[in-house]
Amino acid sequence: MYYLGIDLGGTNIAAGIVDEKLNIVAKASVPTGAQRGIDVVMDDMAALCKKLLADNNLTIADMAYAGIASPGTCNSATGVVEFSNNIVMYNYPIAKVLSEKLGIEKVYIDNDANSAALAEALVGSAKGASCAVMITLGTGVGGGIVIDGKIYSGFNHAGAELGHIVIEKDGRQCTCGRRGCWETYSSATGLINMTKEKMAEAKDSLMWELCGGIDTVSGKTAFQAKRKGDKAGAEVVDMYVSYLACGLTNVINVFQPEVLCIGGGVCNEGEYLMAPLREIVGKENFARNSDKQTTITRATLGNDAGIIGAAALGL
Amino acid sequence: MYYLGIDLGGTNIAAGIVDEKLNIVAKASVPTGAQRGIDVVMDDMAALCKKLLADNNLTIADMAYAGIASPGTCNSATGVVEFSNNIVMYNYPIAKVLSEKLGIEKVYIDNDANSAALAEALVGSAKGASCAVMITLGTGVGGGIVIDGKIYSGFNHAGAELGHIVIEKDGRQCTCGRRGCWETYSSATGLINMTKEKMAEAKDSLMWELCGGIDTVSGKTAFQAKRKGDKAGAEVVDMYVSYLACGLTNVINVFQPEVLCIGGGVCNEGEYLMAPLREIVGKENFARNSDKQTTITRATLGNDAGIIGAAALGL
Repeated sequence: MYYLGIDLGGTNIAAGIVDEKLNIVAKASVPTGAQRGIDVVMDDMAALCKKLLADNNLTIADMAYAGIASPGTCNSATGVVEFSNNIVMYNYPIAKVLSEKLGIEKVYIDNDANSAALAEALVGSAKGASCAVMITLGTGVGGGIVIDGKIYSGFNHAGAELGHIVIEKDGRQCTCGRRGCWETYSSATGLINMTKEKMAEAKDSLMWELCGGIDTVSGKTAFQAKRKGDKAGAEVVDMYVSYLACGLTNVINVFQPEVLCIGGGVCNEGEYLMAPLREIVGKENFARNSDKQTTITRATLGNDAGIIGAAALGL
Repeated sequence: MYYLGIDLGGTNIAAGIVDEKLNIVAKASVPTGAQRGIDVVMDDMAALCKKLLADNNLTIADMAYAGIASPGTCNSATGVVEFSNNIVMYNYPIAKVLSEKLGIEKVYIDNDANSAALAEALVGSAKGASCAVMITLGTGVGGGIVIDGKIYSGFNHAGAELGHIVIEKDGRQCTCGRRGCWETYSSATGLINMTKEKMAEAKDSLMWELCGGIDTVSGKTAFQAKRKGDKAGAEVVDMYVSYLACGLTNVINVFQPEVLCIGGGVCNEGEYLMAPLREIVGKENFARNSDKQTTITRATLGNDAGIIGAAALGL
């Protein structure tokens, strides 16, 4: 028996056939084309799943259930996406729609960040952890919480918004309306903003040469410059690490998870990022004298986490 | 059948006989005298329990179990207080010690803030909530998290330190070693510090008259002054409310608890405090457009929460 896992992303819809050990047997994807509206997107999602099954000589009857990892506030009890502003949905019965289109009885849903955290907790970097928290450093700072193998998202399914913990009161403007949210500092977007601001101050910084101009700054620019001995680049990296460590320490003081895993492109800096983070968190976390310390590590499932997490939603 | 609930506090040891509906049938207390060391304190705790039982014509055999709400990091699985700096304990097998002194087989333990939250979630202000968070505004800002009727405190039992979320990076010095922790702003201590600082600036403030001098400032001083139209007092209250609302919004964005209850002396200000808090949190929380909003309310069990929570630890 297999599970059908679907990761509904802003850019692509990815679907995977997943076995009982949560290995992906086969996967495929199509562009989301979110601007066309959710009804058309769902037609494409169903067609993608049917083609994936056919290409692998399977039928929908071979799937125990389907799971969807979706953006937005996902009511896992009702199968309804209550609100999503990326792919626009408002009280959209996404599970029922897919169920009818595919002719499969059981369709489970949850938020994409929560689903990715579930995948990491079951078969990824946090495998076997009694409590696991996943942080994703992307356009924003995403959060997912898994306790005893179950996603925690609060009584209204809207919790785990770890990026929206204010760490600098009255600080940088956040898209959520507040000021000083962790994600304004520690997302890839935050890093790019810090880099641009420093470049505007430091006209002789190597960062100008490395990225080719202010409009092509990336999350790598400051790290590359620091590695080459650039002072301004080092200042950006040190500031970024300081804010990221502050937010991670907050999360650890709240959850004391067995594993805290970090995903997103910024993590490609590897130990160059992780080592100083561990050092600061190790010094600052409230339980620093405890024999048991949270393991801080990179997420390992990458883009597959959504598919695997979606496929695990019915377990 | 009854449960024996013990609240081991910095000032007093309180013990209660609690029935199956978690009502306190009888209670008594003695001073802790923590400076005498934990061994002597435990003698007094056992004597207190024995006297309480005798005074109520009961014996230890009438108790299904005993529970202890203790300060510090309490390993509920082993019955050991791993670390407490208030009443000094380091890997102290408190459950075993009380078990032997009282001749009762089962003794459960947990942290005092967690136990109080459990009591509120079971029979207090958060009764029946699928997820409840309790915040206590005292010397520090205490936190307790109850999910599906169970205390959540992380894999090492040291979590739920909600007061140690930094909300102003590089801000006020906290006793935990970090700077800018929520508790440095929103505890009663934080309120008193803010009041003193404002009084030093505003020599003509009514606050001087109300409290009788800088050394007798209390958590009530600024609230009293604001009520009487004092500008400086109003500024202190508004600043205090702003920081408290910031931290509460953080907690709600993370947990989206069905109920968030607030305890501690500052709450005696009642709706004068709660109404503006609800207004700010209602505007700022990430899920403000959801149909389901966290109920923010005062804790109702007061000083009994520790006894009741302790008595509920074995349920």
